[in-house]
Amino acid sequence: MTYTPATQDQLLAIRVNAGIEELAQAERFAAAEPDMVEAIVGGIGEFAAGEWAPLNRIGDLEGAKLENGVVRLPEGFAEAYAHYVEQGWNAISGLVEFGGQGLPFTLSCNVLENLGTANMAFNLLPMLSVGAIESLEHHGSKELQEKYLPRLVSGEWSGTMNLTESQAGSDVGALRTTAQPITEGEHAGKYRIKGQKIYITWGEHELAKNIIHLVLARLPDAPEGSRGISLFIVPKYHVKEDGSLGAHNDLRCVSIEHKLGINASPTCVMSYGDNDECIGELVGAENRGLMAMFTMMNNARINVGNQGVQIGERATQQALAYARERVQSARAGSPDKSPVAIVEHPDVRRMLLRMKALTEGARALLYYTAGQVDRGTLGDEAAGARGEVLTPLIKAWGTDIGIEVASLGVQVHGGMGFIEETGAAQHWRDSRIAPIYEGTNGIQAADLVTRKLGLDGGEALTGLIADIARNATNEPALAALAADCEAVAQWMRAEASLDDRLAGSVPFCTMMAVAVAGWQLLNQLRAIESGDAPSLAAGKAATVRFFLDRIVPEAAGLKASATAGAATLYTLSPDQLAG
Amino acid sequence: MTYTPATQDQLLAIRVNAGIEELAQAERFAAAEPDMVEAIVGGIGEFAAGEWAPLNRIGDLEGAKLENGVVRLPEGFAEAYAHYVEQGWNAISGLVEFGGQGLPFTLSCNVLENLGTANMAFNLLPMLSVGAIESLEHHGSKELQEKYLPRLVSGEWSGTMNLTESQAGSDVGALRTTAQPITEGEHAGKYRIKGQKIYITWGEHELAKNIIHLVLARLPDAPEGSRGISLFIVPKYHVKEDGSLGAHNDLRCVSIEHKLGINASPTCVMSYGDNDECIGELVGAENRGLMAMFTMMNNARINVGNQGVQIGERATQQALAYARERVQSARAGSPDKSPVAIVEHPDVRRMLLRMKALTEGARALLYYTAGQVDRGTLGDEAAGARGEVLTPLIKAWGTDIGIEVASLGVQVHGGMGFIEETGAAQHWRDSRIAPIYEGTNGIQAADLVTRKLGLDGGEALTGLIADIARNATNEPALAALAADCEAVAQWMRAEASLDDRLAGSVPFCTMMAVAVAGWQLLNQLRAIESGDAPSLAAGKAATVRFFLDRIVPEAAGLKASATAGAATLYTLSPDQLAG
Repeated sequence: MTYTPATQDQLLAIRVNAGIEELAQAERFAAAEPDMVEAIVGGIGEFAAGEWAPLNRIGDLEGAKLENGVVRLPEGFAEAYAHYVEQGWNAISGLVEFGGQGLPFTLSCNVLENLGTANMAFNLLPMLSVGAIESLEHHGSKELQEKYLPRLVSGEWSGTMNLTESQAGSDVGALRTTAQPITEGEHAGKYRIKGQKIYITWGEHELAKNIIHLVLARLPDAPEGSRGISLFIVPKYHVKEDGSLGAHNDLRCVSIEHKLGINASPTCVMSYGDNDECIGELVGAENRGLMAMFTMMNNARINVGNQGVQIGERATQQALAYARERVQSARAGSPDKSPVAIVEHPDVRRMLLRMKALTEGARALLYYTAGQVDRGTLGDEAAGARGEVLTPLIKAWGTDIGIEVASLGVQVHGGMGFIEETGAAQHWRDSRIAPIYEGTNGIQAADLVTRKLGLDGGEALTGLIADIARNATNEPALAALAADCEAVAQWMRAEASLDDRLAGSVPFCTMMAVAVAGWQLLNQLRAIESGDAPSLAAGKAATVRFFLDRIVPEAAGLKASATAGAATLYTLSPDQLAG
Repeated sequence: MTYTPATQDQLLAIRVNAGIEELAQAERFAAAEPDMVEAIVGGIGEFAAGEWAPLNRIGDLEGAKLENGVVRLPEGFAEAYAHYVEQGWNAISGLVEFGGQGLPFTLSCNVLENLGTANMAFNLLPMLSVGAIESLEHHGSKELQEKYLPRLVSGEWSGTMNLTESQAGSDVGALRTTAQPITEGEHAGKYRIKGQKIYITWGEHELAKNIIHLVLARLPDAPEGSRGISLFIVPKYHVKEDGSLGAHNDLRCVSIEHKLGINASPTCVMSYGDNDECIGELVGAENRGLMAMFTMMNNARINVGNQGVQIGERATQQALAYARERVQSARAGSPDKSPVAIVEHPDVRRMLLRMKALTEGARALLYYTAGQVDRGTLGDEAAGARGEVLTPLIKAWGTDIGIEVASLGVQVHGGMGFIEETGAAQHWRDSRIAPIYEGTNGIQAADLVTRKLGLDGGEALTGLIADIARNATNEPALAALAADCEAVAQWMRAEASLDDRLAGSVPFCTMMAVAVAGWQLLNQLRAIESGDAPSLAAGKAATVRFFLDRIVPEAAGLKASATAGAATLYTLSPDQLAG
């Protein structure tokens, strides 16, 4: 089954939470005027639902397959990707000088939201390309940019990010892939890359004409750990002076993983330099590769948080459609004993409204974050810092609610939810990767209670909480949660050890995310009440009340966990834990 | 990989929470003296881990297959089932007069716990047989009992429960299968059964020599709805006078479902009477089939809650083993920069302790419930009523934490958790069915806030909460949660409409379950402190503190949801919900 793009709610979030009209006042984003925004949001929604959504089930069933070194996708993927490129959707936020439209990140978030709601696994292809584009935009030489960016921006070529090795997951600094400078011959000035990378999303496929791998590796005599890592660009096919494609580089997909979900997305083990002939070019300075990668990773984390919104929207629509159709039992306590559609039963309603409230809350947080990032790009440092505080929140909580909403979607379907043909189970399986990749949610929470807690001398976080508190005057639960967040933050700064902070990081991250989402939903409701998007008024009032009256108090229940400290966790040795 | 049976923690729960020594003082359960209990718990643990656990992965990979009307299981299942029967494990709680050991339900819970930890899908075979046995024990005529019980009790034959039809899921009363009395010929006095049933667990297989189907159907002119349903026994092979097997009855497995998990458990669409020759016998009185089924369903619900404990134990052990082995990153803030096993990182510890605390908490609740049921069997009506209150708690919360723990298990594994070969994902997929079958968790919660809220004039629930409060004097969080539970219960009785109660039923059910589990964990700790099971002392102290200091306050955060009422849920029409 397909779905209806959430165009109106997206436009509301883009206006109210991202503040697109203010962004469009800057010259850089002047093209983002209302007609253009509506055309993009409406257009990508229609395209995604029409062309990508129908491939979601077959992508799960057949999946990506590796045959003689070539990754095959089910029928329809190549054509759907070609249409996506032809229609220019890949170029929304790319730099104008390289063929992009130069629009705000907020709008590229929307393109990804729609594509991923249609087909989460497929959407990873453009999503990973964004990382390669951003790395080159920020750290590539003019020459590299001119060579690679135009066709990456258009989508004619795709990009990948190669960080992980089997011994180097969350600890990227432990990687061992090497890069040897070439001093002579046709590749002089370039590097010979050698090593094996795992979990490379869309590492091999034939939908794009070339694949541009961004690979982290070590130069000879580089310092140990994360300070000795450099970033290289390694194309699948060499690119000649005239821009045409040359020979196949010495790299290959060794195998693809058999995964729990996102089966249409080939997760590759990539081998570079089996024959010592894998040629790459350095991006940015030597030994500064991790820094270059982190530039890109911030937005990538937001894009992963976005996946929670995507799967939430899709699962909610599917569950609601089923609940309206499935007739079972009379209403409890009703004199009329005829069976009704299950959407009429109180607990089914509760599940559906919870799904809707979590999804819309995460969407509000997503676009609020994107808007802050765009302001940062325009030079507003305070907004940029706030964007950094918000990034772990949307990544961790967005992906957590993705799973929760998809699980509720299974539950609404009853026994049918456990049968694969229904499709509800696929959403749940697909959703499970998002808390893991692009930095596990534990890593996000650690980032919150270390770097982000102290950003701008603590002002970035404290200012955010103060803004929520100021806007929560008539909402006691939200005001209480904001006060709880401030109390946890103060405890973490003043009393807690680093271990204590880390022990409370995940619950604190959830508390913060719910507080911001609740606040941003409230802003949506207030905007609607002053005349914006009146068609959403009834539904929004119900979801906002559900969120503030039920979900916000639950988050307050996490305060004890956030401040319980690390001591209990370390009373046991690993042997005793096992006992 | 396999695992180590949680024998010591099970023995602790059986002693402290079920109170096995007190049970053994009754003549009926006199055989349950300490040596026997230890022999059973240790023996079934060893058997399950040794013979059933190794089949868990192949059962998932290959699954049950329907070939020409016959269901095939992967190699090894038939032998492992035969050993299970030979060693007498199926007969633990069966009546002595039919070859059973007549031991308490508490111990059959333990047999199921161990089998299901080893292999959740396989364990459904004995678990469903229990239902057939109990239906016959309570409602079968002497003749039917003598004919069927001995070989069901031994496990030589297996049993199934046939309730659901495509239009009759949670609303069993909507079923349409018919039973026509036979007045002449060799089957006079029996019934001709006709209809199709879905979701029949282990509905067809060849591990047992016969399959005894318990089937709900309607007699001619039966009243509409749930008052017109009768229970029939329908064997796969007719059973002759001398007990030998006759011809194949007119029933067949039409198809098996392609499911999200528990793939080794064939979930069958069963067709009865395609040729109008399906013969069944009435169990109990005409039109009283649902009542007969409910007798059995109470214990079945406890057995499903047990599955949460099972998957929790298995997932926790697997995650802990991985966390002790996987080396990644130095300890944050440590001067020693060498990488450590991830079990040393605070947030990984938090996840592992949470898994352990939830699993052990659910186990404490499980055996507390089983002990109350056993007291009920001995004639203690108050305990029997308490067992009824506890049943929806262990079913709903037990299965909820099964999913949560399995999900944390995936998370601890990082990227490896999403790869099927690791096995962590299987636990998570398997766990997802348990909140759905045997009455969805929404149905359990509805049972709590309707029938159970009013049981014994409300005394059954209120007395339970009072017991918790009385034992929580030095535990402020538990005392507060007990007070919250009482406040919710009072609000539900005094102020709430039926819709309001149903709207708050699921959060209230969780609050109650966490309160009871916390109390029962505390009882374990106190028992250890007075000399019981000293080997568990260190680990138990840590899990109990984790549970009381973190999980209990979270449950208190649900109070607002439990008392928020239904009004918000009904402000929207289904159309508006979709908007």
